[in-house]
Amino acid sequence: MRKVTFGCANSLDNFIAREDGSYDWLLHGEEANEVMREFWPKIDTMVMGRKTYDIAQQFAPKPKKKNQKPKTHIGQLKTYVFSRTLEPGERDDVTFLNSDPGAFVRELKQQDGKEICIMAGGDLGCALLEAGVVDEIGFNIHPVLLGSGVPLFHKMSHQIDLELIECRQFKNGCVYVRYRVKN
Amino acid sequence: MRKVTFGCANSLDNFIAREDGSYDWLLHGEEANEVMREFWPKIDTMVMGRKTYDIAQQFAPKPKKKNQKPKTHIGQLKTYVFSRTLEPGERDDVTFLNSDPGAFVRELKQQDGKEICIMAGGDLGCALLEAGVVDEIGFNIHPVLLGSGVPLFHKMSHQIDLELIECRQFKNGCVYVRYRVKN
Repeated sequence: MRKVTFGCANSLDNFIAREDGSYDWLLHGEEANEVMREFWPKIDTMVMGRKTYDIAQQFAPKPKKKNQKPKTHIGQLKTYVFSRTLEPGERDDVTFLNSDPGAFVRELKQQDGKEICIMAGGDLGCALLEAGVVDEIGFNIHPVLLGSGVPLFHKMSHQIDLELIECRQFKNGCVYVRYRVKN
Repeated sequence: MRKVTFGCANSLDNFIAREDGSYDWLLHGEEANEVMREFWPKIDTMVMGRKTYDIAQQFAPKPKKKNQKPKTHIGQLKTYVFSRTLEPGERDDVTFLNSDPGAFVRELKQQDGKEICIMAGGDLGCALLEAGVVDEIGFNIHPVLLGSGVPLFHKMSHQIDLELIECRQFKNGCVYVRYRVKN
């Protein structure tokens, strides 16, 4: 069965973006880059929320030639984006979906392939945690209380027990925590 | 100026108690006890929220003789409890208050004495953080997503920057983090 990981950067008060969606408070550092460099080769599939997909597109380097596609990890990875508003179907190397995320990822885990990464906010992330299809979670807790914003966690119907795998203190004051989800 | 510390135990999704106020999910361990043993001698004053005060009373060992008071840290420490419902005034070694917590703690910091500890949930804790009177925060992050409960953090009017002082991984899977508040 393929391992499913849900992770992101968050503030200590568990916001993943400001109210207006901005993420100017994110700290960059070699240690976080190293975590990501180790992680990318393990996965071949990405499941994203639509808002996170929009943000990932903004982060992508601008194409140098006209009509050239932006260079992102998308394209090298099989990418699924869940959206309630966009038309389902394949375009721009992405499959857009509006079906039940839990059932979809449960099915995806049964297929052959490498690990699966969930890049999403609280809506999709918590839906998948509640559905019991997430095996690991990892957060890069930033040294800031944003006070308001887009929440990482939403109300869930039941408690989810975790096992701490790793805890690292980064030079920039971030704390990186990784847990096994006891499904 | 006396140092003010706000701290508590929380779930990874930042709840400090279940919806019904219960805290059966709290893990005990020698490392957390050690942190508290180092902390107690530094303080001589405690500022509590009323709900936290009620919980602290439950935690106190039962008196062995009739009419004997429960043995808590309260009594050894000057204790103030903020409550919107209880009658203000001194009783049972405690001063009950319903004034503005920020102004009260700001005044308290100017007085002679040892450090001040805030034992409270999000209501009082965030009011004091917003008022800029908290110097340090420390949380014992438990390896669990409660899914719902009493929130540690409430919406705040502005961002609060932090400096990570300490991050410790406990044997029981808790992560203890301590930050300086950049007021």
